[in-house]
Amino acid sequence: MDLNSIFYPKSIAIIGASTEVGHVGNDIVKNLITQGYKGKIFPVNPKATKLYDIKCYPYVLAIKEKVDLAIIVVPSSIVPTILETVAKKKIKGVIIISAGFKEVGNIDLENQIKKICQKNNIALVGPNCLGVINPENNMNASFANIMPRLGNIAFISQSGALCTAILDYAQKLDIGFSKFVSVGNKALLSEADLFEYLAKDKKTKVIAMYVEQLTNAPALIAAAKKLTHGKHSKPIIAIKSGRTSDGASASASHTGALAGNDSAYQGLFSQAGIIRVEMISELFEYLRIFTHNELPKGDKVAIITNAGGPGVLTTDEVILSGLKMAKISEATEKKLKKVLPAYANFHNPIDVLGDAKADRYKAAIDILEKDKAVDSIIVVLTPQSMTEFDLTAQAIIDAKKKSKKPIITSFIGGKLVEKSVKALRANGVSTFSFPEEAAKALDALTHFANIRKDKYNTKFNFKNTNKKAAEKYFIKAKEHGQTIFPEADVLPILRDYGFPILHSEVAKTSMEAQTIAKKIGKLVVLKIVSQNILHKTDAGGVMLNIMPNEAGAKFTEMIKNIKHQFPLAKIEGVLITEMIREKGVEMILGSVKDPSLGNTIMVGLGGTYVEIFKDVAFGLTPLTAYDAQKMINKLKSKKILDGARGQAVLDTQALIDCLGRLSQLLVDFPNIKELDINPLLVLPKGQGVKVLDARIVIE
Amino acid sequence: MDLNSIFYPKSIAIIGASTEVGHVGNDIVKNLITQGYKGKIFPVNPKATKLYDIKCYPYVLAIKEKVDLAIIVVPSSIVPTILETVAKKKIKGVIIISAGFKEVGNIDLENQIKKICQKNNIALVGPNCLGVINPENNMNASFANIMPRLGNIAFISQSGALCTAILDYAQKLDIGFSKFVSVGNKALLSEADLFEYLAKDKKTKVIAMYVEQLTNAPALIAAAKKLTHGKHSKPIIAIKSGRTSDGASASASHTGALAGNDSAYQGLFSQAGIIRVEMISELFEYLRIFTHNELPKGDKVAIITNAGGPGVLTTDEVILSGLKMAKISEATEKKLKKVLPAYANFHNPIDVLGDAKADRYKAAIDILEKDKAVDSIIVVLTPQSMTEFDLTAQAIIDAKKKSKKPIITSFIGGKLVEKSVKALRANGVSTFSFPEEAAKALDALTHFANIRKDKYNTKFNFKNTNKKAAEKYFIKAKEHGQTIFPEADVLPILRDYGFPILHSEVAKTSMEAQTIAKKIGKLVVLKIVSQNILHKTDAGGVMLNIMPNEAGAKFTEMIKNIKHQFPLAKIEGVLITEMIREKGVEMILGSVKDPSLGNTIMVGLGGTYVEIFKDVAFGLTPLTAYDAQKMINKLKSKKILDGARGQAVLDTQALIDCLGRLSQLLVDFPNIKELDINPLLVLPKGQGVKVLDARIVIE
Repeated sequence: MDLNSIFYPKSIAIIGASTEVGHVGNDIVKNLITQGYKGKIFPVNPKATKLYDIKCYPYVLAIKEKVDLAIIVVPSSIVPTILETVAKKKIKGVIIISAGFKEVGNIDLENQIKKICQKNNIALVGPNCLGVINPENNMNASFANIMPRLGNIAFISQSGALCTAILDYAQKLDIGFSKFVSVGNKALLSEADLFEYLAKDKKTKVIAMYVEQLTNAPALIAAAKKLTHGKHSKPIIAIKSGRTSDGASASASHTGALAGNDSAYQGLFSQAGIIRVEMISELFEYLRIFTHNELPKGDKVAIITNAGGPGVLTTDEVILSGLKMAKISEATEKKLKKVLPAYANFHNPIDVLGDAKADRYKAAIDILEKDKAVDSIIVVLTPQSMTEFDLTAQAIIDAKKKSKKPIITSFIGGKLVEKSVKALRANGVSTFSFPEEAAKALDALTHFANIRKDKYNTKFNFKNTNKKAAEKYFIKAKEHGQTIFPEADVLPILRDYGFPILHSEVAKTSMEAQTIAKKIGKLVVLKIVSQNILHKTDAGGVMLNIMPNEAGAKFTEMIKNIKHQFPLAKIEGVLITEMIREKGVEMILGSVKDPSLGNTIMVGLGGTYVEIFKDVAFGLTPLTAYDAQKMINKLKSKKILDGARGQAVLDTQALIDCLGRLSQLLVDFPNIKELDINPLLVLPKGQGVKVLDARIVIE
Repeated sequence: MDLNSIFYPKSIAIIGASTEVGHVGNDIVKNLITQGYKGKIFPVNPKATKLYDIKCYPYVLAIKEKVDLAIIVVPSSIVPTILETVAKKKIKGVIIISAGFKEVGNIDLENQIKKICQKNNIALVGPNCLGVINPENNMNASFANIMPRLGNIAFISQSGALCTAILDYAQKLDIGFSKFVSVGNKALLSEADLFEYLAKDKKTKVIAMYVEQLTNAPALIAAAKKLTHGKHSKPIIAIKSGRTSDGASASASHTGALAGNDSAYQGLFSQAGIIRVEMISELFEYLRIFTHNELPKGDKVAIITNAGGPGVLTTDEVILSGLKMAKISEATEKKLKKVLPAYANFHNPIDVLGDAKADRYKAAIDILEKDKAVDSIIVVLTPQSMTEFDLTAQAIIDAKKKSKKPIITSFIGGKLVEKSVKALRANGVSTFSFPEEAAKALDALTHFANIRKDKYNTKFNFKNTNKKAAEKYFIKAKEHGQTIFPEADVLPILRDYGFPILHSEVAKTSMEAQTIAKKIGKLVVLKIVSQNILHKTDAGGVMLNIMPNEAGAKFTEMIKNIKHQFPLAKIEGVLITEMIREKGVEMILGSVKDPSLGNTIMVGLGGTYVEIFKDVAFGLTPLTAYDAQKMINKLKSKKILDGARGQAVLDTQALIDCLGRLSQLLVDFPNIKELDINPLLVLPKGQGVKVLDARIVIE
């Protein structure tokens, strides 16, 4: 597919060009003509001869010249017919503005247009979108009436309505765009394709996106990872709506209970290296800092302020966001003492005092910029009677031009700071209304500078997963119409995938229980086997520390107890397992299948309180070893794995290995709807892990 | 003290009035004269005869007329002398602008001025402050050059430099103030006094404050609680700087490790009912909503939008912040269907569609405003080609005027929405740049509407705390120069305060261990007693489930093991305690003393992972029963207490009782520097709690 035909067409046909002012088909022609597009424009309208003084064509094939891009604004029902003529005309780029496809249930119609484009190698944006804007060639191929200034942000939006608001707001902040795409229903071109294109687009430095729903997670993750890592990486900043939902369905597994409808997206964004923001305001704050600054070399921040209070507020946010306050060296302090009054604060945050004029700011910035211990500078200004707004702004602009370090500002105030803030913005200095926001955005920038260096595709290095052996349990389940696997079947499946499983067997009678326990020859655990009892511990269906010679009696006791509590439960027996006495920590591995993104993978602290502390992280299949490590890094309980409070360091490597095996299992059997391995006991380093319990639900 | 002399003086003397333009003593006279103050102004300057055409007086007593307020701008060293003449002149209000007191170490000088004011019943603001502004009488008794418009916010700031920034920014947003006070060093008048005054101030509806350090927590909490609760409550919104610190000192206790230098403030704000914000931007967002809206009756929100995406983003924030989406009744839906097009979304968020003009917004607002299931309305607008900005704004203004429900807006965009946003603001409609911020602010408003109804002073209802009995241990410690109490002493102290303690005794020999264990006659726990071993479990200094007849041998084993590990530790013996086998949950109670706020109280989930999950809440002594319940309500582990996942409901009442007893202990012995009761085992309802371990460190 040739995306240049979308963004850099030499000629455009507007099929459905309208003579009625106010109609979309009219707006687009008007925008193309009046906002500076220099290529050829061919309005197609059988009922008109001229539109805005340009010749109209009755149909596409009536155009004799070459057409690169077709914009389609006709009723959805006739779009396929139109597309066929577009193909015949050998047009390689199409934007379908028209609505009336998948979004209103017309899935077949949408598939039809997709197929026509695929067959003819046509790059298709839409349908049901606002259009495309490329400020570089002044092409406004949309019905939004704003031409943004040229900048280095590519904006991809799944909401058309939001686009105008974004364009309008960006204009106010003097933010420019390299490309602006309303992707609509994404029948053919999706974010992944655009990532690939934008990776090579020299005008684009940052990608911003508004997302409602994503599909084909593996392709998206792969494309995003490539874009966000390495020397020529470009950050992707995303905002996604629909993080909450009122009607999350009841779930049978722990993982299901922990997975909100947003967990899969959490996993996806993290895995792809996409920076996620939660509010539109944050999106703009991040865009401000990413577009104007090079990436800092480290996380040490110096703050320069003319007021103590805001200096401390900024320090708070610097530390809370994870950045560090730069330690001012004695040499630097000495230099500062030469240019600042004696009462100034020479320790970071540097207070140049309320009566500071521009010269003090300038001197302090110059000295700190040269200090190797300083990676970034936040300049805070409050309006005092001696403050020189414009000169201080100019001093910052000058320093920024010469420097490779991020220098960002917050001039706090209203009318008094207005003009200087505008000057800062116009000259490529990131400004923030309040310094706390500056610190937060700087953290995002610094964080990106770090993760892009990661070796993001580190492969797993394990063998012995046996798909064929495991398959028979899935076949059996299918034959029996079973969706919930009994633990006794789950454990062998996990064993086939190389999970460390305990010796265990199902006893149907008290006698069998006794025999199995004696064969194990150590303390054992008894666990009820029943599809009707989900939380065995709560139901009294788990007995620990049973001596082999007690096993028979305990079997009888458990069965009696369970039958009393759950008279209707179908009991298949009691699982007898060896009792683990090594000290370790109980983790949980799990998976739920997301309807649009596929199989997720979860890791977290397991045990009884798993749902209370929700210390879990999500990813998506397939997982790399790097992804697995990153998931674990997100957990608070990582401190436990690392040996909190003088306890043993645990076998995180074995846990990572299990995440890889789980990923493989899910790739091999994507019809697994829910899966819990809980607890997975992680033992001290070198001793591995043990699966203590597990369950699988298939579709 | 008469604070009216500060805010409503009929005559003001400026002592240190300067003829030099640009000097603070000149600025204040100029601000008073030029910004509309109608009372009498007496500049005091021995070297001048006139200032801005007003007669100057050589000294205060030379003024023959009555003076209500003196503003002092002379060097700090002569302030006491000046104050004496002010007292002689019977001036009842003083603002000391001059710096050079406590903030530079001159504590004695500050105490001196404090005493003079106290003796003469003078209300004193400052020293080291920017001054006071009262827009109601156009009195700008400060050196900030901005007179804000009259509004209903009283602003109290501990930072002078921030004041000008706040005033400037507020002007831009059309936010007005009822009073504006820069409190400076708070030598005499503190926030608590101002709360008391503002409670009765009819012009003030909301109190905003910027805080750096607070003292006298009990008085502050009492005054704030009175102000923030009840029918005539006024919200207090605070921002505090210095939440983080680089050099938090190492701590001996769990509580110490968990208490950052901000925990005491967390406790204070929560206990006082003060709404805390973390960023200046948030402060303004909250001010916007609190000043313009009555409190909602409930937490059900309706969203009206002309764009789906922003509607969903708003819904996300509504739900995440804790509010609920209003369920649109069938009756309301029917009404909406009559006025909105068929394609509109009639389920909340209500989508009036991109081509909505003002009439659709107006109709939808009117219908939803009348629906009893709707407590508040958020109106979202994005600029589309048919959008009527001004008319829609007017429709909202009209609806808001007639309604008692909060109706707030977010017109997303830049230049296109600018004019209508200004109109909304000028007409008392809260506007937000983005709808997510509107939702967050609405949550704060709704939350306040709830907590102000609480019976905040519910007293504890327990007896049998025996200060006298406990005192002897403190005396003994003092005699021995001991600061860390051994567990064997801590338990009796707790018993004297009515905490449920286990039967326990210290054994010095293996024989004694055996005898004590047999006396207890059940399974016992052995715990090492040594001041040098802080974390007993980690050190192997705790043995559980020991049979009485094993106790002697286990004693020997433990001593040997500990001596091996800690050859230098002084071992005082082994504590033998009955083993608790009831199922419960391990909580932690604790306290650390904050240097400025006093003894804090902490409650949270105890056990080994306490420092990893940090599920703790803080309060300050003295605690009411209400405060204790509120602390527990903040914990995630409250779910465990309430009986998570089919487990038993636990004895929260007994836990609350313990918090009261702990508060009493700390009130009686405020020299307790650190205290841990960990674990405190909370048993099923009706079975109470048990102290399993505890430690006390005194100053």
